[in-house]
Amino acid sequence: MENSPTCIFPPAPAPKPDEEESLDVWGFRDTKFEILSNGSVRLTGSRYSLCDQELPSLLPWVSEVMKVPVRADDVYPPAYPTPIPEALAHPQFLAELRKTFAEDQLSQDPKIRLRHGHGHTQEEMFAIKYGKIGRIPDLVVFPTEEGQVATLVEAALKYEACLIPFGGGTSVTEALRCPENEARFIVSVDMRRMNRILWIDPVNRMACIQAGAVGRHIVEQLKGHGFTMGHEPDSIEFSTLGGWIATHASGMKKNRYGNIEDLVLDIHAVTAAGKLERSSVTPRESVGSDPRLWLFGSEGNLGIVTSAVVKLFPLPEVQNYGSILFPTFKDGVAFLYELAQTHAVPASIRLVDNLQFQFGMALKPKATGLKALKSKLEKFFVVKLKGFDPQQMVACTIVFEGSRAEVAAQEKTVYGLAKRRGGMKAGAENGIRGYQLTFGIAYIRDFVMKHYFLAESFETSVPWSQAEALCANVKRRLAEEYERRKLPGKPFLTCRVTQVYETGVCVYFYFGYYYKGVPHPSEVYAELEVIAREEILKNGGSLSHHHGIGKLRQRFLPQIKSPATLAWVEQAKRALDPHNVFGSGNQGVGAKDTPAPKAAGGAQ
Amino acid sequence: MENSPTCIFPPAPAPKPDEEESLDVWGFRDTKFEILSNGSVRLTGSRYSLCDQELPSLLPWVSEVMKVPVRADDVYPPAYPTPIPEALAHPQFLAELRKTFAEDQLSQDPKIRLRHGHGHTQEEMFAIKYGKIGRIPDLVVFPTEEGQVATLVEAALKYEACLIPFGGGTSVTEALRCPENEARFIVSVDMRRMNRILWIDPVNRMACIQAGAVGRHIVEQLKGHGFTMGHEPDSIEFSTLGGWIATHASGMKKNRYGNIEDLVLDIHAVTAAGKLERSSVTPRESVGSDPRLWLFGSEGNLGIVTSAVVKLFPLPEVQNYGSILFPTFKDGVAFLYELAQTHAVPASIRLVDNLQFQFGMALKPKATGLKALKSKLEKFFVVKLKGFDPQQMVACTIVFEGSRAEVAAQEKTVYGLAKRRGGMKAGAENGIRGYQLTFGIAYIRDFVMKHYFLAESFETSVPWSQAEALCANVKRRLAEEYERRKLPGKPFLTCRVTQVYETGVCVYFYFGYYYKGVPHPSEVYAELEVIAREEILKNGGSLSHHHGIGKLRQRFLPQIKSPATLAWVEQAKRALDPHNVFGSGNQGVGAKDTPAPKAAGGAQ
Repeated sequence: MENSPTCIFPPAPAPKPDEEESLDVWGFRDTKFEILSNGSVRLTGSRYSLCDQELPSLLPWVSEVMKVPVRADDVYPPAYPTPIPEALAHPQFLAELRKTFAEDQLSQDPKIRLRHGHGHTQEEMFAIKYGKIGRIPDLVVFPTEEGQVATLVEAALKYEACLIPFGGGTSVTEALRCPENEARFIVSVDMRRMNRILWIDPVNRMACIQAGAVGRHIVEQLKGHGFTMGHEPDSIEFSTLGGWIATHASGMKKNRYGNIEDLVLDIHAVTAAGKLERSSVTPRESVGSDPRLWLFGSEGNLGIVTSAVVKLFPLPEVQNYGSILFPTFKDGVAFLYELAQTHAVPASIRLVDNLQFQFGMALKPKATGLKALKSKLEKFFVVKLKGFDPQQMVACTIVFEGSRAEVAAQEKTVYGLAKRRGGMKAGAENGIRGYQLTFGIAYIRDFVMKHYFLAESFETSVPWSQAEALCANVKRRLAEEYERRKLPGKPFLTCRVTQVYETGVCVYFYFGYYYKGVPHPSEVYAELEVIAREEILKNGGSLSHHHGIGKLRQRFLPQIKSPATLAWVEQAKRALDPHNVFGSGNQGVGAKDTPAPKAAGGAQ
Repeated sequence: MENSPTCIFPPAPAPKPDEEESLDVWGFRDTKFEILSNGSVRLTGSRYSLCDQELPSLLPWVSEVMKVPVRADDVYPPAYPTPIPEALAHPQFLAELRKTFAEDQLSQDPKIRLRHGHGHTQEEMFAIKYGKIGRIPDLVVFPTEEGQVATLVEAALKYEACLIPFGGGTSVTEALRCPENEARFIVSVDMRRMNRILWIDPVNRMACIQAGAVGRHIVEQLKGHGFTMGHEPDSIEFSTLGGWIATHASGMKKNRYGNIEDLVLDIHAVTAAGKLERSSVTPRESVGSDPRLWLFGSEGNLGIVTSAVVKLFPLPEVQNYGSILFPTFKDGVAFLYELAQTHAVPASIRLVDNLQFQFGMALKPKATGLKALKSKLEKFFVVKLKGFDPQQMVACTIVFEGSRAEVAAQEKTVYGLAKRRGGMKAGAENGIRGYQLTFGIAYIRDFVMKHYFLAESFETSVPWSQAEALCANVKRRLAEEYERRKLPGKPFLTCRVTQVYETGVCVYFYFGYYYKGVPHPSEVYAELEVIAREEILKNGGSLSHHHGIGKLRQRFLPQIKSPATLAWVEQAKRALDPHNVFGSGNQGVGAKDTPAPKAAGGAQ
């Protein structure tokens, strides 16, 4: 950045030995749930606060809620990986790539190719262990600089290959799934070696960061310079800056720092037409139609984001956690509505429903001694003295960030409003716990899958006036459809409000079920998820708040966008990527126009 | 809005007798500057606080600063309108339109056509009085509902006409100027009869407003329901919601409410492909590439915005004004930088440079009695006691809005920081005056034009570290170029910081000069403005903060956007409007692809 007199150029992040990720399940390789011989559950390793604790209540609670048996020895053995399709051959293209890329930047390893052909939907994770693997990339390329991305795009255009960018691989919309009928050679472009912070401008509070930088590394490196970018999606451990832009991501602290579209000041991208870039980064502009904006939510369809300039914020003077209990979900939502109308909304505030509140309790370790006593007393106070119904009560968890004065003012507002709505302060510890659970719980889905549970999350955003009805109707509808299908026991149905806006909220649902004895369990789940989405749309919810469309939700697009709106996206794609080199086929765009390969070397 | 249980459907705004606008100069017909026989200046009418006061200091001050004579009787008589070109004929098209539009919705009145062919750049305003009028619309259409806009677009496609949307006509980028070589029949689409608030949803704090609604009416109507949308550009008296979207507008209170892109939740538009619309309005989404975003800054190139859903905010509990004097501009900028890093930035804060501060003083009415005494005392205190240099000191004006507690906290922060930077509180009255002057001063440019002054404003945004240097360098460069050209006296060169962001500021320049005896004065001005813009870009400033590109700044686009970026805009335009029916030619887009009319009736 020529203009700033005070830029810092941090070194590349050093690779760490403990960062290896699992290929067959979510997360780090050193972390997984297991059932102990006494029936307690434990999360291995030491990475999360939940780790290395005996959790005696989890299985009994799940059995009780879902009316199904859970036994340590009742396992559906995963067959990961189920047969991996052979890669297509394209020797001329590979020869061309070898002029630019080193051998370790090109991988045709079957498991690596497999991993780059999916994200983390239940369908995808079920398929690699129990199902049939469809079309996957024929090659994975790991560029290390923007010039290599440009070379790759040129080569793909010349040799009629198809490119699908890959960030953290955390997609939950099948955005990474390869189009089944793609006859061209498919390249997954893994951006994670482009992971550097290129510069930090501490005066103007900006940083230029490569698109493959992973959230946790961005946080860590910026922290060393006294800054944060403030973007903390639940996937922050693995997802990348480029992925955030391409999926239009939201961070849990958006109330203070903004969502990704508020944080990004400039985007560099390689497209079929060349590099999108600008001569300067200014705070705000009106310079005509701005193609950078078109990349938000583009899901890999229009090009590959290579770096972005983002806002920086000084690390907050104070970070306080908090929690509040409310008698009912309705009370909690009413409280959030009032809070959202103030200018004292904390960095993050979430409201979990009763089942999720209970779930959090079931994840508590065996309490002993003084701790057990304190816990009992608390419980007594809430249930007996305040008259809260344990089957109705809900919890808010809060992160306050800012100056001492700001946080004090927010706390005053928050707890004052809560009290008026019948809420009860439940302490910082429960708040911390709520947020920490987010990361540990992410491992549970793949763990329970082999114990005959299929689970998945999905989200929406909805105006305030419809929020409560939407939550209730989606749960009711799924319960009805579940019963109609005579599926085992009871479904696991829970939701939380994860974001508040002036005009509405983001709602995050979890739906899980016990699939033992159910034919085609993954398809059954998918069918029910479609029904849930229909119910969401019927109740005024959006098709997605921050997960995106990918291939999972593309069928619903005609329900929410007018024909002209869809035509615009399609026509723009055709104009900007006429050969569909960015052929992920997300949002149903581009794929049908893909020209058949003319070179004989295309598919052998 | 089907989903909200509590929508209000306000009636159409009643037309008022005093709202007639001038055709040859800025603003309302009842308001204009005049020179009195005693040499004082007066603004007629009673609309603004500046009105009906004798301003004895203005002309002497201007003469002194610019080293030129100003005399009441030294007038360059305006010849408005200079010859207005005949309208093209297109009887088939007109016959088609008459099936849908009433006679009073179609105008070929020469002065109406003329007014719809320009905005308010000095070139445009000079041309209609002293210059040559170029290509102007052949017809002005006033649709009253979205269906009529759709009909108009279809007819234009069928009969190969060219459409240019028209909002408040306040463009300062020649966005309304018709492409000189446009051979097709040009229709100006005046949206101001689509001026209704369609509904207000007080629960979810949203309103759906037609695109032709004028800012002042939006404010007034929403106020009646206890709300504001918080968008207050300096042109608010005349500019429209649709215009704000198309130019990517900024409001002076954006610190509290956001800029236009932060306020708009949904956009309805008629395009060549049909209507862009959505099934629901949710607080935030990730639903793939979003064509609604492409309309921000589209400047009429892609379609006609017909309505938008915007956020509403309750009217603030408190609105306080304030002002602060600083010894130098540097001190003022340093103060703003510190303030911008807090979360206590007031709704609006502006910093004027010394010349603009003096200008404000020169616009003070004759002070008499106690008022004169007070004014003298103040001056004594600042200049003598505090040692402020009258040729260096600058002023900040501030609007605080919010709850009592918020405003109190902001005031504490603002005045505390100001004191540390050597600032001195200068009272609410000076703050109010600063903001009120904005609207009255807008009339001065066209008034002084006939007294041989040409003046114009232009803006930019720039990172903090370059802000002060940019201001100084632009002024220095213009002064040098002025002297090199041996132009009369001294140029009028002043700037103010009008917006603060985390990463930088918006700077607004005024440049004026005395053109008596100068051949082609408007061209000379334009040439100097281009030089100023080059200097801005050289100093890291943006091509525009909120005015836009239009035709005025399109020549600079290749300096700021890479070839691929420009190609994207061009290719998208070609795909989305293949016949260039939205043929304004802004940003240099589309015009060169306009097919020649094939019908003989096109141009006669």
